[in-house]
Amino acid sequence: MPVAGANRQTTATQSRHLGQLHQLRQQVYDQLRCAIEQGSLRAGTRLPPSREHAASLGVSRNTVLWAVQRLQAEGYVVARVGDGTYVSQAADTPPTQGLVAPPRGLSRRGQLIAETAARWRPSHVAARAFRIGAPEVDTFPFALWDRLARQASTRQRSDQAQYLDPAGNPDLRSAVAQWLWASRGIRCDAAQVVVCSGSQQGIDLIARLLLDVGDEVLVEDPGYPGIRASLLGHGVLARPVALDAQGLRIDEGAAQWPAACMAVVTPTHQFPTGVCMDLPRRQALLQWARTHDAWVVEDDYDGEFQYGGAAQRVPALCSLPGSERVLYVGTFSKTLHPGLRLGFVVVPPALVEAFAMARAITDRHAPGDTQAVLARFIAEGHLLRHLRQMRELYQARQRVLIDALADASDGAWQLQPSDRGMHLLHEAATGTDDETLSRNALTAGVMLAPLSRYAMQSARKGWLLGYAGYSEGEMRAAARVVGALARRL
Amino acid sequence: MPVAGANRQTTATQSRHLGQLHQLRQQVYDQLRCAIEQGSLRAGTRLPPSREHAASLGVSRNTVLWAVQRLQAEGYVVARVGDGTYVSQAADTPPTQGLVAPPRGLSRRGQLIAETAARWRPSHVAARAFRIGAPEVDTFPFALWDRLARQASTRQRSDQAQYLDPAGNPDLRSAVAQWLWASRGIRCDAAQVVVCSGSQQGIDLIARLLLDVGDEVLVEDPGYPGIRASLLGHGVLARPVALDAQGLRIDEGAAQWPAACMAVVTPTHQFPTGVCMDLPRRQALLQWARTHDAWVVEDDYDGEFQYGGAAQRVPALCSLPGSERVLYVGTFSKTLHPGLRLGFVVVPPALVEAFAMARAITDRHAPGDTQAVLARFIAEGHLLRHLRQMRELYQARQRVLIDALADASDGAWQLQPSDRGMHLLHEAATGTDDETLSRNALTAGVMLAPLSRYAMQSARKGWLLGYAGYSEGEMRAAARVVGALARRL
Repeated sequence: MPVAGANRQTTATQSRHLGQLHQLRQQVYDQLRCAIEQGSLRAGTRLPPSREHAASLGVSRNTVLWAVQRLQAEGYVVARVGDGTYVSQAADTPPTQGLVAPPRGLSRRGQLIAETAARWRPSHVAARAFRIGAPEVDTFPFALWDRLARQASTRQRSDQAQYLDPAGNPDLRSAVAQWLWASRGIRCDAAQVVVCSGSQQGIDLIARLLLDVGDEVLVEDPGYPGIRASLLGHGVLARPVALDAQGLRIDEGAAQWPAACMAVVTPTHQFPTGVCMDLPRRQALLQWARTHDAWVVEDDYDGEFQYGGAAQRVPALCSLPGSERVLYVGTFSKTLHPGLRLGFVVVPPALVEAFAMARAITDRHAPGDTQAVLARFIAEGHLLRHLRQMRELYQARQRVLIDALADASDGAWQLQPSDRGMHLLHEAATGTDDETLSRNALTAGVMLAPLSRYAMQSARKGWLLGYAGYSEGEMRAAARVVGALARRL
Repeated sequence: MPVAGANRQTTATQSRHLGQLHQLRQQVYDQLRCAIEQGSLRAGTRLPPSREHAASLGVSRNTVLWAVQRLQAEGYVVARVGDGTYVSQAADTPPTQGLVAPPRGLSRRGQLIAETAARWRPSHVAARAFRIGAPEVDTFPFALWDRLARQASTRQRSDQAQYLDPAGNPDLRSAVAQWLWASRGIRCDAAQVVVCSGSQQGIDLIARLLLDVGDEVLVEDPGYPGIRASLLGHGVLARPVALDAQGLRIDEGAAQWPAACMAVVTPTHQFPTGVCMDLPRRQALLQWARTHDAWVVEDDYDGEFQYGGAAQRVPALCSLPGSERVLYVGTFSKTLHPGLRLGFVVVPPALVEAFAMARAITDRHAPGDTQAVLARFIAEGHLLRHLRQMRELYQARQRVLIDALADASDGAWQLQPSDRGMHLLHEAATGTDDETLSRNALTAGVMLAPLSRYAMQSARKGWLLGYAGYSEGEMRAAARVVGALARRL
């Protein structure tokens, strides 16, 4: 497999060298990926050791390592410690919706973005049971929302129609800071709250400002593909770290990826397995960040949905002492609705200005009216009331889901109740093929995400069932479909 | 000026080499910039020839060139063809609001973004005469807008509250496509319209997908700093091209920057000088794009504000035959208001998917409600009506501005009327110090942007006066301030 244009000459000018390096690494990557996709490297095949591989191509070992690490981050290959690197089982099953060949004309970065996003491809068909991440929206207080919009004076309306502070509406930043203290135990200044368009933009701004191409970031495995896609699209390497009952195995992560400079975690309610990170693990994570001068990103996507008494609620990681290197990402996509496109990042005071500027050159700022209405919605106590109702509703729906599934599967699917979150996991034995049942469910109109779709190296299998956004009737109907399929397993 | 850690060893591994290169270039850049900012390299000083400079630092000539090119793109130094590179006059006057030292902890890319944006630092204080780019918002039909929002059924409201298509609301994309055909002569499919958060996000997505670090892009000089900031923040080199009465000198640009792979232009009404690009120049630009396999980005920021009869309106560049390599960026920030944060890019069919994906990993999509209301606003004829009213209003305001300034300056400032746009330029002789008058005006409460603030290498001077957003009373009061200052010149 010789690489066209391979060139070991190191006396060329530095900038030509730089360009060649990029090209070489991309070529090695393309050839390997192509070989995997076209089946000439079958699942389970061991890749040649990097040193021999490099020699046979006439490139440096680092060039091969870069390509293999990217394939690993994308899930094409799996490294087995002390053994070698193998083409992964998932690799020769094309992703559900097919990998699109990137169109000509894209830059190298553009191709990376297009390919990465194609492997994630977030769904935007109307949510149906049991799609995860969808809150209840049918009973959302839209009329109240509209009334709050109309309450603004003409002066306020035209003020909100101008170019605004990229860091966000000051009233909204204050309201969020107060809310975080009351609800999540986080003490921060309003000035540290940077408003963004949902947590996806929060991650994007973090990657732009705190990471460089080639940087390594620890991510949970299984974990949220939207975060991995964002990192990969920025040329950052997402490094999988396994979970246990206490949360992210930071000890393993630190040992396996010593160069990592950031960890992205969901400590309150791990996405998607639902584990809550315990205090010793949280402290170990903060200690890792201090020792490695690294950042921790806390994605608290559903932290408001904790159903126990106030005393049982888990406060945010970023409320702990020693959390100076934690950035907290919050979103209104779950507490209110995803169509709103509002979220925020809480950043150290020294970084606020940089975040505001990154937002300014990215898309200036969030819409004026929406920010102002949300500020009033929170300040006037509507968020508190809405969440109280939703917590009650979601708890009831979780019980319905468990009951309906147990009924429909004749007890085969007995889900464990959880005192937090908007979805449950039904875990299966490691060897289970969770994709097939999900495909069959989809054919019958039921969305049932297989756990393997969220995994990088993890062999964990199972199914995820969202319950927050669905009525009892919808869930019972969907459970009958799943139950019938489950009984056939 | 020896560089710490300078190292010419070229036998190190490629990836170490890559990191060292980055570091070296950054060091050379930092030292030079620091020397300029602290005054050890004064304005007008000629930099040493790059070859000697490199030899004295013990680095490669390309390393020095990279640093100097970045300083040039940022306006610290100016290249004089056939002569050498000089510290620019603007460099030792710190930018109005001061350059912030980037906080520790940012990545190299993050530092670039923070520094770049700090030099642009878009204003978000309430617009006052004569700030440019601000449309009339006091009489915006907010009540109508709210009514359209309330017209949606409960089903529609909850549909808009879900995760949505990253490319945008289908009704809005259709409405925009139809509008573009009627108003700007552009024939495109609704599927080619990708909704984004204002033109700033349009440029951001374009840079992410079509450009790589180190790519060169032709920009107008003087031109819009927000575009340059976006490009620089992506590690792209913005290459200044001069203008004449026909628009961008693409012949000069092509000769001076043969490696450029994109040109960003405002052909309808050049920002900020107001030149309209004539047909031969448009054809030359399209020819350049074909020959160089390059992209042309048409930023049509105020193309809807043309005041002559329909026959005199200039159609969009992207409506010409042979415009396959043109991406059209439109915004509702001028036609409606900036607080809305909606705009769009019209892209070749083959790139739509990549744009949608880039949007998805950046911030998912635009808010659901706002998109749906805007779609109805356009489809029901309200945009047409609103623009008709605004065109009449802005024409009258332009006459007021010209008249008020001539009065207040005793005829010294006699602005030429224009049949398009939302601001006028009062150009001054090349040697004029346009910053001082602007600073004095600001002290007296009047915003008067100096032309030099929009320039890279251009020596053109003058002042820009926005009139669209201000009442006759506001403009007459502001004109008295400017007139008094102008009479003292």
